[in-house]
Amino acid sequence: MKAPIDFYFDFSSPYGYLASHKIEALAKQHGREVTWRPMLLGAAFKMTGSMPLPQVPLKGEYAKRDFARSARFHGVAFRIPDPFPISTVSACRAFYSLDEKAIPFAKAAFKAYFVENVNIGEADNVLKIAASVGGSADISSQAVKDRTKAEVDAALAKGVFGSPYMVIDGEPFWGVDRFEQIERWLAAPF
Amino acid sequence: MKAPIDFYFDFSSPYGYLASHKIEALAKQHGREVTWRPMLLGAAFKMTGSMPLPQVPLKGEYAKRDFARSARFHGVAFRIPDPFPISTVSACRAFYSLDEKAIPFAKAAFKAYFVENVNIGEADNVLKIAASVGGSADISSQAVKDRTKAEVDAALAKGVFGSPYMVIDGEPFWGVDRFEQIERWLAAPF
Repeated sequence: MKAPIDFYFDFSSPYGYLASHKIEALAKQHGREVTWRPMLLGAAFKMTGSMPLPQVPLKGEYAKRDFARSARFHGVAFRIPDPFPISTVSACRAFYSLDEKAIPFAKAAFKAYFVENVNIGEADNVLKIAASVGGSADISSQAVKDRTKAEVDAALAKGVFGSPYMVIDGEPFWGVDRFEQIERWLAAPF
Repeated sequence: MKAPIDFYFDFSSPYGYLASHKIEALAKQHGREVTWRPMLLGAAFKMTGSMPLPQVPLKGEYAKRDFARSARFHGVAFRIPDPFPISTVSACRAFYSLDEKAIPFAKAAFKAYFVENVNIGEADNVLKIAASVGGSADISSQAVKDRTKAEVDAALAKGVFGSPYMVIDGEPFWGVDRFEQIERWLAAPF
């Protein structure tokens, strides 16, 4: 059995959202599972000295255009939510508090934010989304906070600095625009 | 006649180098010419608050791996030069001082730097490369300095913040990883 694909993303990342629509089919074609690993881009940005794309001069304007065009390119429903970006710590904690409902929650949270314009930065909305997929999320216990911090720290320790970020048998790929390379890599590393 | 594709790049950019191997064939398939427009990433980085990829924590290590893997993916000979990155102002001035030899010079300069490990940050090497394609480059006259500055300023004014950066009928595309989107766009904007 081949190792799962590690799929790191931030719930506030448009490119992470687009990747979430493609990763499972791609993995399945090559006999792989996907381990979903939400992380917090804010923590990574502190290490890289980056800031959210919309705040970067020149690049911010381009990014907004590229988000929407890339969504059309991949055939995925998308709008830039308002507000954007947001803190995703509640969504991240909810994910790590859920078991078999974690991935359904992640998909529902992405859809709520990037299609239905629901502010998933708000704890109440996160809990409602978890309930909508039959999950009972815990976002306030110390155990869940510790688990989430440990997951985010582990991602940073592995060098995860962006979203989406995929690791396949130790090989890292950053960006939904690396899916072509991933597809070839899964067939045969090059 | 359709408008040419504006192809912005920095001579020290690995992704710009990869794009230089693909842009002309792609344009030709869709009945377009390519206008090569070298610029200076350092000037763009001052506006965006960025720094050269190899200097960015986490991202720098990834970038070195991705440069080489992307070159293999596209089937283009590549090595990370030493030193890297460099100032490309001399190469940029040489380009804008040449007429029909400008594009052959650009290709030769990219090859010298990313295949033969020639330091194209050094003025002497730039002049030799121009001579090797039959060109007589001027990198020291005030007229050429002014022309180069005007070209770089015009690129920044158009929002060019990275390399490669392609503009097609007003639509901007950043990165060699946008060539898939460019290909579809040239067939029919989406």
